[in-house]
Amino acid sequence: MRTVDLLIKKRNGVELTPEEIKHLINGYINGDIPDYQLAAFCMAVYFKGMTAQETVHFAVALADSGDTMDLSAVPGIKVDKHSTGGVADTTTLVVAPLVAAAGVPVAKMAGRGLGHTGGTIDKLESIPGLKTSLTPKSFIRQLNTVGLAVTSQSGRLVPADKKLYALRDVTGTVDSIPLIAGSIMSKKIAAGAEAIVLDVKTGSGAFMKRKEEALELATTMVKIGESAGRETIAVISDMNEPLGNAVGNALEVEEAIMVLKGKTGGRLRELSLVLGSQMLILARKAEDFNEAYQKLEEILDKGLALEKLTEMIVAQGGNPKVVENTDLLPKAKYQKVIKSWQDGWLIINDAQAVGRAAMLLGAGRRTKDDVIDPTVGLKFHAKTGDYLKEGQVIVEIYYNREDNLKDALDVIKNAVSFSEHSVPPRKLLYGVVRKEGYEEY
Amino acid sequence: MRTVDLLIKKRNGVELTPEEIKHLINGYINGDIPDYQLAAFCMAVYFKGMTAQETVHFAVALADSGDTMDLSAVPGIKVDKHSTGGVADTTTLVVAPLVAAAGVPVAKMAGRGLGHTGGTIDKLESIPGLKTSLTPKSFIRQLNTVGLAVTSQSGRLVPADKKLYALRDVTGTVDSIPLIAGSIMSKKIAAGAEAIVLDVKTGSGAFMKRKEEALELATTMVKIGESAGRETIAVISDMNEPLGNAVGNALEVEEAIMVLKGKTGGRLRELSLVLGSQMLILARKAEDFNEAYQKLEEILDKGLALEKLTEMIVAQGGNPKVVENTDLLPKAKYQKVIKSWQDGWLIINDAQAVGRAAMLLGAGRRTKDDVIDPTVGLKFHAKTGDYLKEGQVIVEIYYNREDNLKDALDVIKNAVSFSEHSVPPRKLLYGVVRKEGYEEY
Repeated sequence: MRTVDLLIKKRNGVELTPEEIKHLINGYINGDIPDYQLAAFCMAVYFKGMTAQETVHFAVALADSGDTMDLSAVPGIKVDKHSTGGVADTTTLVVAPLVAAAGVPVAKMAGRGLGHTGGTIDKLESIPGLKTSLTPKSFIRQLNTVGLAVTSQSGRLVPADKKLYALRDVTGTVDSIPLIAGSIMSKKIAAGAEAIVLDVKTGSGAFMKRKEEALELATTMVKIGESAGRETIAVISDMNEPLGNAVGNALEVEEAIMVLKGKTGGRLRELSLVLGSQMLILARKAEDFNEAYQKLEEILDKGLALEKLTEMIVAQGGNPKVVENTDLLPKAKYQKVIKSWQDGWLIINDAQAVGRAAMLLGAGRRTKDDVIDPTVGLKFHAKTGDYLKEGQVIVEIYYNREDNLKDALDVIKNAVSFSEHSVPPRKLLYGVVRKEGYEEY
Repeated sequence: MRTVDLLIKKRNGVELTPEEIKHLINGYINGDIPDYQLAAFCMAVYFKGMTAQETVHFAVALADSGDTMDLSAVPGIKVDKHSTGGVADTTTLVVAPLVAAAGVPVAKMAGRGLGHTGGTIDKLESIPGLKTSLTPKSFIRQLNTVGLAVTSQSGRLVPADKKLYALRDVTGTVDSIPLIAGSIMSKKIAAGAEAIVLDVKTGSGAFMKRKEEALELATTMVKIGESAGRETIAVISDMNEPLGNAVGNALEVEEAIMVLKGKTGGRLRELSLVLGSQMLILARKAEDFNEAYQKLEEILDKGLALEKLTEMIVAQGGNPKVVENTDLLPKAKYQKVIKSWQDGWLIINDAQAVGRAAMLLGAGRRTKDDVIDPTVGLKFHAKTGDYLKEGQVIVEIYYNREDNLKDALDVIKNAVSFSEHSVPPRKLLYGVVRKEGYEEY
């Protein structure tokens, strides 16, 4: 098999066989196939796409490139949850303890943030003492004692994806739906859960700006998951506006705790309940959506999810007192507010800009090697559709350094506008993709 | 300037600026930009093409990557000639001495064959003693004494093209018209001639199978040449059938000598006269095509072109007696003939297969590192449109080894067929591309 012939085949839009895809990925990870051939392959895929079959074999070949988690020592159906990334998206910190409290073991391998989006591991690390790098052994043990464990991804898991992503990043081939789907699903397959709930975001702050793209990505990922023997569903949710009110690592942990305490409602709570309900159904802990949803609301209201988060923090060496007293989370030195400059109905237009502003303050990474500041970020006091009078606070800024403050303020100001007529709140949920197809909400 | 941003720009179909193209090519040749980024670039160009402006700057950036020949010490307008490659295409060995005999200095940097196509340097090297690697100094000296010199391309000429071609070869990005045009024209620009006549082949044995592709390539190359200040025209000629009768290095030299002696006519003689006439016009040695053509016919008939070839052979250290006695060229040990298996009008369908058969016999290279046998090949005794009786010889095979003989015979047999009705000879010339546009013959 000559690699160049496979590149020409893909370039000409001919479907590659499973063996041919394996040859490419295995050869790449072994070092037999050089970077430049995979770079040409990725660019050809950018233009010609992949068939459903190709995408499945691509994801499986990536997953097979390294270790895979064996969760068989944990009883029950393990359900994984993955978000394609957004701004103020703290759902994992709400939904994971919530579902775990309902008896579904949640084994979560999470990532770090990059660019305008945050990452669960970064957020968790703002909890004093909390370890995010668990050995497979302690991960399994914690799953069997607490029913919930969150760890950063081990370097030995899907090394081909790591290598390929780094290549795509410098060759202009990141935004290809089959490559994105394969990358995400390879990690989910290797992470070992029997079922997967995907939260595919769409809108200005999401990777997929248009709903059709989000739907295509979701459909591709569901196909991969199902073909790999994992029951998979995908919820399509809005990311035109930040999901929660807080953007920034410690600030988002605080907001998650507030949701778990029942002190904050809104979109973050709602999406957590929806994703959690889907997880419960896949774990066979509920017959249907309504049953699942009611169950989770009850658990939330009784404080059982908060308890579960506390147990997890203890198990991972963190200070559990942050749950009672969020003032124990690290704090930025300075605050500043942006006030409404007119009367009117608020519109938050640009979630990506909000994420970028948080990055400018130090909450996110411009490049992989940047060091983040867990304390900084911002908190919205209003959402799209709220009526504000001139002088009311729109957003609070938490910062430690003046460097990019002005830029960050400008970016936020440009991300919001006012209407003289009333504006409805944004729709949060668009629909669900199952192996049977798409169902609009 | 971030290289990845240029890749994304090209991928999105946005025109790159001259500076951006220079950045890519210079960075690549300096080693600042890695192979994998250029591989992604080439694949993006495969899909999105290049604008005329981009192609010009691409060719010039390649040409500027190394040394350029300075032909200013040679008086007169130097005209270069280039063929895009075919089977039994020995025109250079006919047209170069022909035009030189008409007083146009011909400074030719030629290449070696690859795959089913031959190369002028390989052919010349079948002349005992002849040196094909001239220093720039002796190249210029010979141009001033003989008016004709043929040398292989120096390694310091357009190194970026050499490096990029090797990369395209293994990344499935060879067949992109702007990349081909840029590659060819960069070499012509660096080779220093003031004017260029291109012979763009089309048909089964050519790189451009379809006439529209050949026309596009020709148009692109003419634009590049003219923009780089070189008067450029391109003749579109047929390569559905081998051009001459002989395929193989010494056999083609023999055929060229026969044409120069006036002992063979046909397509090889005709194309040589046409290309030569265009060269004469660009060199201001003739007012129009008819004048040029008549002049060259006269020179040919008087044996002056043959004399010029002899002078060149002497100047380059070869044995000039081969001109008088072509039996002094190296010969294959064995011969075999393929005879007509029926009465009928012959059709040679597949020039590429004929070239492949010669390669199988050892006349060509499968890969760049193969060693060729100058003696082997084949000689057609008939052309498309000839009426043959069963048992008449179609083609003579010259070989030294039995290894691939059977395969070669099969390939040739499959490349020809018979018609029960009379068949016209193939059209040789389609048209000419000038800066003003395309003119059909």
